[in-house]
Amino acid sequence: MSQEIPYKIYLNENEIPKQWYNVRADMKNKPAPLLKPGTHEPLKVEDLEPIFCTELAKQELDDTTPYFDIPDEIKGFYKMYRPSPVVRAYCLEKALGTPAHIYYKFEGNNTSGSHKLNSAIAQAYYAKQQGLKGVTTETGAGQWGTALSMACAYFGLDCKVYMVKVSYEQKPFRREVMRTYGASVTPSPSMDTDIGRKINEEFPGTTGSLGCAISEAVEVAVKNPGYRYVLGSVLGQVLLHQSIIGLEAKAALDKYNVKPDIIIGCAGGGSNLGGLISPFVGQMLRGEEKYRIIAVEPASCPSLTRGKYVYDFCDTGKVTPLAKMYTLGSGYIPAPNHAGGLRYHGMSSIVSQLYDDGYLEATSVKQTDVFEAAEMFARTEGILPAPESSHAIRVAIDEAMKCKETGEEKNILFGLTGTGYFDLVAYQKYNDGQMEDYIPTDEEIAASLAKCPKI
Amino acid sequence: MSQEIPYKIYLNENEIPKQWYNVRADMKNKPAPLLKPGTHEPLKVEDLEPIFCTELAKQELDDTTPYFDIPDEIKGFYKMYRPSPVVRAYCLEKALGTPAHIYYKFEGNNTSGSHKLNSAIAQAYYAKQQGLKGVTTETGAGQWGTALSMACAYFGLDCKVYMVKVSYEQKPFRREVMRTYGASVTPSPSMDTDIGRKINEEFPGTTGSLGCAISEAVEVAVKNPGYRYVLGSVLGQVLLHQSIIGLEAKAALDKYNVKPDIIIGCAGGGSNLGGLISPFVGQMLRGEEKYRIIAVEPASCPSLTRGKYVYDFCDTGKVTPLAKMYTLGSGYIPAPNHAGGLRYHGMSSIVSQLYDDGYLEATSVKQTDVFEAAEMFARTEGILPAPESSHAIRVAIDEAMKCKETGEEKNILFGLTGTGYFDLVAYQKYNDGQMEDYIPTDEEIAASLAKCPKI
Repeated sequence: MSQEIPYKIYLNENEIPKQWYNVRADMKNKPAPLLKPGTHEPLKVEDLEPIFCTELAKQELDDTTPYFDIPDEIKGFYKMYRPSPVVRAYCLEKALGTPAHIYYKFEGNNTSGSHKLNSAIAQAYYAKQQGLKGVTTETGAGQWGTALSMACAYFGLDCKVYMVKVSYEQKPFRREVMRTYGASVTPSPSMDTDIGRKINEEFPGTTGSLGCAISEAVEVAVKNPGYRYVLGSVLGQVLLHQSIIGLEAKAALDKYNVKPDIIIGCAGGGSNLGGLISPFVGQMLRGEEKYRIIAVEPASCPSLTRGKYVYDFCDTGKVTPLAKMYTLGSGYIPAPNHAGGLRYHGMSSIVSQLYDDGYLEATSVKQTDVFEAAEMFARTEGILPAPESSHAIRVAIDEAMKCKETGEEKNILFGLTGTGYFDLVAYQKYNDGQMEDYIPTDEEIAASLAKCPKI
Repeated sequence: MSQEIPYKIYLNENEIPKQWYNVRADMKNKPAPLLKPGTHEPLKVEDLEPIFCTELAKQELDDTTPYFDIPDEIKGFYKMYRPSPVVRAYCLEKALGTPAHIYYKFEGNNTSGSHKLNSAIAQAYYAKQQGLKGVTTETGAGQWGTALSMACAYFGLDCKVYMVKVSYEQKPFRREVMRTYGASVTPSPSMDTDIGRKINEEFPGTTGSLGCAISEAVEVAVKNPGYRYVLGSVLGQVLLHQSIIGLEAKAALDKYNVKPDIIIGCAGGGSNLGGLISPFVGQMLRGEEKYRIIAVEPASCPSLTRGKYVYDFCDTGKVTPLAKMYTLGSGYIPAPNHAGGLRYHGMSSIVSQLYDDGYLEATSVKQTDVFEAAEMFARTEGILPAPESSHAIRVAIDEAMKCKETGEEKNILFGLTGTGYFDLVAYQKYNDGQMEDYIPTDEEIAASLAKCPKI
């Protein structure tokens, strides 16, 4: 126990996990099945095959297989940017004067700048294996689109990204990274698709929405032979791929006999949180160990803390299957002054069920408090964090300060999902004292939830 | 020799070098001394003390001490982002089909995004040690200003950055990173200084130049008690601090018994190149080993390949000491279509002398060829390289392709100095096919050189 902990704990390359862990296999209460929008029947693999690669459709519906071998080609790609380090935040601890030991799993050390690459490379691989020409997707802020572009470049797949028009125009650098990786990036709504043309006609001058971009990407995938649609969060397959985060983090901490008392992750659709906590929750589900797990969401988009656990559409356009999840209603859109990601109306069915069963807590934080924590972290730990990741930083700091009061030497682990190089418009607002907070009223949330389908 | 080389060779934290190496100590032909502009007498420490910290002034003039202990506080900071990896470019090799083994030392894995942090933290440390309030500097593209802001935040020093006005306006994100680290960033020419007011009066609406920003930063340092001026390249002290790059690279390769046949670095003022090659050149100077070393400069700013080895001013404003160096004349400014950094008119006196003595070769490359290499590298190795670093990538690829022709299994090491997150305007130009090349005529260079002082 008294072995000195380095600043950065790197696994050796041969210690990178060789299997993903499917937490659903250990859940007694399985996540509720996806339902067909029309008939409300549970979806089968063949229902998903026109949209997803076959192998990914199987992963999506598999809630019994605990481990999936990671294909060699993906393990090869991992070596470009994995293992990612678990960092002991010595400098932050010192600045806080806390007896707590703070660790973070840093997933931003790759050009896409976030953990999204872990699932992008897996989804691109299975598309390549199936002999497809390419994949389509949507992107908002651009982390997922960038990750997917990198992954497709590696496998020589075509990559068509529908980027919400307002982001396309306001985030030209994100767009250029994707183009540098060979992706075609189209502002959405476009004139390339039926749904895009329809929306442009109905709402001339619209700057688009994620819901519309999803609809366009799905339409293009379904209509073009050799293409499938891919998605970067929410889905069970994504959490499966992202389990690499938690598996590596656990292996690194185990090396030094460190057991985290508190595990903290930011939560939008649940891809990072679900991935980080999977092996730890697995131990809890099997009765082997206890951890305190905290999901942190923005006060402006509080699906776990203020949403309802019901069946809802996964997209604003209501073309996707129905999922049972904590949701604010598929029409819910965070206020325009909300700066970071984490703007999804719902939460991964897996995370939702675990939360409902009491395996994790949830809390929400205001964005000015988030950026205050981000700036302190940048100055002490030398990494400019993404606004998303900074939600977890905020709560890690708060918990560490509680330890200062009580004198407890707790081990705190949080997920630092990515870097903020492309979020400097938001940092500028904060630096200029012009960032505002928004907390939806109960009435707003109730009105949005009232539109959920009755199932 | 047949031991398998991992993708990334990381030293352990206790293997990070504990001393910087001063290559001047092993040079038989020392770099020519800095001269006072008026009298042409060699400068002494006391002449430099009003501008530089005392300890840095000593380092600047010391050409006999081979090793300097790295202070504990700097070693502590190093652990935030060092050791940086030596990466075996397996994916690039595969894409090229070359038998060569390509390695790169990656210095971009810190928030400042480049190797500049290595000297920034050292210079900030000595300022703090001397009890100063803060430091001043200039920045053009912003890599150095960002690095210095991070270093000053760590030591609680005030940091005043004069940023060339055109960059201040065109690179708001760079500016915001510096502000997030607590630096004050002023567009230059400003109305805060005599020289700034004078230039604004003479040239209304000017967008500034590096030469002017240097003059402003020096003026503010000299006039404000408790402040000194710091610089990110060219100087002997900077190359001393940057020797950490070469020392780590050599230690990592030695671990696997890899001897580089060719060592390649991009060259602007010489900070990265000088740091990377120091320990290798040291072996050559001591007659222990032979390497082929290649300095790569932009065709639009070719100081080594087309300049003259004479005494010249270090700045455009002609307020600094005179240095003997390969120079294009202190009034030389690369064409406006030049995208990346590496725009300094001269070259570190140390690198200049080594080049003059035949220890290294130099070559120049066109920027469209540089971005072609950058894009290939991004797609195969997954890192979006800075345009500066991509000069070295270009020549590494060219040398690897020669190995393909000859079948030679050479070991190629190059310096990947930083990432290109803030250079996406240039990438966009390249992606859109709108990037142009510029090669100065002999007449242009001769006219600029004619203005060098006659010494």
